[in-house]
Amino acid sequence: MKAILVIMDGLGDRPIKEFGGKTPLEYAKTPNLDKLAARGINGIMDTVAPGITPGSDTAHLSIFGLDPHKHYHGRGPIEACGAGVELRHGDIAFRANMGTVDESMTVIDRRAGRIGSTVELCKQLDGTKIDGVEIILKPSAWYRAALILRGKGISDKVTGNDSKKTGARIQEVTPLDGSKEAKKTATVLNKLTKLSYERLHDLEMNKERMENGELPANVLLFRSGGQYVPVPSLKERYGMKCACIGTGLYRGMGAFLKMDLIDVPGATGRYDSDFSAKTKKALEISDDYDFIFIHMKPTDSAAEDGNPELKVQMVERMDKAMGELLDFHGLVISTADHTTPCELKKHSYEPVPIIMAGPGILKDDVKKFGERSCSKGGIHRIRGLDLMPIIANHMGFSKLYGA
Amino acid sequence: MKAILVIMDGLGDRPIKEFGGKTPLEYAKTPNLDKLAARGINGIMDTVAPGITPGSDTAHLSIFGLDPHKHYHGRGPIEACGAGVELRHGDIAFRANMGTVDESMTVIDRRAGRIGSTVELCKQLDGTKIDGVEIILKPSAWYRAALILRGKGISDKVTGNDSKKTGARIQEVTPLDGSKEAKKTATVLNKLTKLSYERLHDLEMNKERMENGELPANVLLFRSGGQYVPVPSLKERYGMKCACIGTGLYRGMGAFLKMDLIDVPGATGRYDSDFSAKTKKALEISDDYDFIFIHMKPTDSAAEDGNPELKVQMVERMDKAMGELLDFHGLVISTADHTTPCELKKHSYEPVPIIMAGPGILKDDVKKFGERSCSKGGIHRIRGLDLMPIIANHMGFSKLYGA
Repeated sequence: MKAILVIMDGLGDRPIKEFGGKTPLEYAKTPNLDKLAARGINGIMDTVAPGITPGSDTAHLSIFGLDPHKHYHGRGPIEACGAGVELRHGDIAFRANMGTVDESMTVIDRRAGRIGSTVELCKQLDGTKIDGVEIILKPSAWYRAALILRGKGISDKVTGNDSKKTGARIQEVTPLDGSKEAKKTATVLNKLTKLSYERLHDLEMNKERMENGELPANVLLFRSGGQYVPVPSLKERYGMKCACIGTGLYRGMGAFLKMDLIDVPGATGRYDSDFSAKTKKALEISDDYDFIFIHMKPTDSAAEDGNPELKVQMVERMDKAMGELLDFHGLVISTADHTTPCELKKHSYEPVPIIMAGPGILKDDVKKFGERSCSKGGIHRIRGLDLMPIIANHMGFSKLYGA
Repeated sequence: MKAILVIMDGLGDRPIKEFGGKTPLEYAKTPNLDKLAARGINGIMDTVAPGITPGSDTAHLSIFGLDPHKHYHGRGPIEACGAGVELRHGDIAFRANMGTVDESMTVIDRRAGRIGSTVELCKQLDGTKIDGVEIILKPSAWYRAALILRGKGISDKVTGNDSKKTGARIQEVTPLDGSKEAKKTATVLNKLTKLSYERLHDLEMNKERMENGELPANVLLFRSGGQYVPVPSLKERYGMKCACIGTGLYRGMGAFLKMDLIDVPGATGRYDSDFSAKTKKALEISDDYDFIFIHMKPTDSAAEDGNPELKVQMVERMDKAMGELLDFHGLVISTADHTTPCELKKHSYEPVPIIMAGPGILKDDVKKFGERSCSKGGIHRIRGLDLMPIIANHMGFSKLYGA
């Protein structure tokens, strides 16, 4: 059996007074998700563990069956995978931005006026060696890039140079432990900060930008460093052929897990993203794949913006997209990676609702997709790490344990 | 307080179209189990873990409070315990059959025409030494036997000689790792295969069988080898005196856990098994034991045969037997070791329903024993490893943890 797993980012929420105490998901009109709930078995899920507020990275690792306490080494390597870098075991990867500093290295803008591409900029530094350590710098979306250090005697136990503050001098990279590897890495990275300014500031493109009144992209900012340690893919664990339909970190997560990355025109990861294009694409490619992971982002963004009405809109647009999957002859799983309550404007710890619908599923009495309605379903309360074993087993990709 | 634990093998199932979407258990008339459900607290249980399809062996280990990831070393040692062998730590035990081969060692029948006893045959090989390794061979039911290797420098990292195929040459035993112990064990076992043919083929009883047109039992077939590592019994862990009423592997499980094995006339482990004789026997011996484990097999067999009607019949006969326990003044627990959906004809991963009824139990609103009705009960969803601590504690056999 085939399966499509849809993760609606930060979907879970708390009661909203203006919605009569309902959550955005409970308040939204979701006829398609409700149909799936009525056909399926429902429950709630602590993606990492009860009381733990997961990052999107640790939540997705858990959902894909990898204990983050063992397999999580920072967000950098996951995003670098999404940028198309072929990482090697031991590489140290950072999330990077092109930013703007003045002559005193004070940060003016962390995104260089949201510059639209870093291709030219990355070329100026990619392939350089500093103290024997290779610098790999690959462009990602907009002002973003992936920075990788490759070489012997390096460590991810260092800060970045990006304090996320503007108006302050760029942060000096410091070691986070007493090892000589961390010390060496900090030295290399501080040299890289200087070198980036030297090589980027006087570029023709930056001169043009300044002439046009735009901020120059004259410094490399980086953070969230982590060592790349390969993880077993779903293919390796279960033998299933997997595809990923997502952007940003979620595309990185697909690449990290060695899924095929599927591009969908109109899928932007932002409020204007075409969710139906994603579910349609999933159906289109479902002959070629066993397991398809679809990620939908802006429910989280709306909550982080503290905008419950916008979150309701996003939920209703996602529900419409789910209509495409009603005739899918396989397993459909709909859930979230974590809650993001609009009142908090950030991730939270509560369990998320989950539906599993498809052939052979022992459907329960739940008729509506929601935090509290799903909580009454036959799945009860599971953990993120339980999910892939259940999905893989229902798909027929698991082996008997014992005899 | 005393307790009787009844395990109905492979009881859980999936919706059956012909039963209006009900499972065999939901469809069956089970007035006695429903009475127990109504008196008790109910729930669902992942005998090993969510999403894991357990074998009968790993499921029972979990249910008896032993983590199979630590305590499971193959089915061989458990079955050997059931055959009455006093195993020693380090013994390597196999499930064995007497079979029929032709002169070229091609397997004609894996069960030698389902020969009714292996007593005479086992005597021909029991006690032999090959390369310093003692061969212990004890008869079990019908064509079955337990094979044990005892000695130094042996390993369970070997295949059997039984490929479960007929019409092919008997399988050569091969080592499963690079150790010298596995190599030596494979050599001993390959010599044993030849020796079994030499000693059995020309036996008077085989000559008689051939004269009567029956297949000779002229070879020892073996599989599922595992090292015997003793486990802590319920007596050792809780101080309770335990009895086992079961056949085959389940009798072995009782012996493995050092329970007293109780024979019940009419209990065959097959479709004709007298379940009421088992529950009556449990009542009879309940003055002498604290904890009685009853196993009922053929719900699993019917599902493996893909026969939901037969499964319903078996459930209804088991329900009738449960009527004997309605007046028992102790704890009655009714559950399963795993699901066996008729549509799959093999074990599956879904949680199983469970009832606990007896004095002091905080009864819930559930009125019917079934996968979905129990799921709404007060036990919610537990794991197999949770069960014995709950039972033992309710019986009064547990100590305060802390002060």
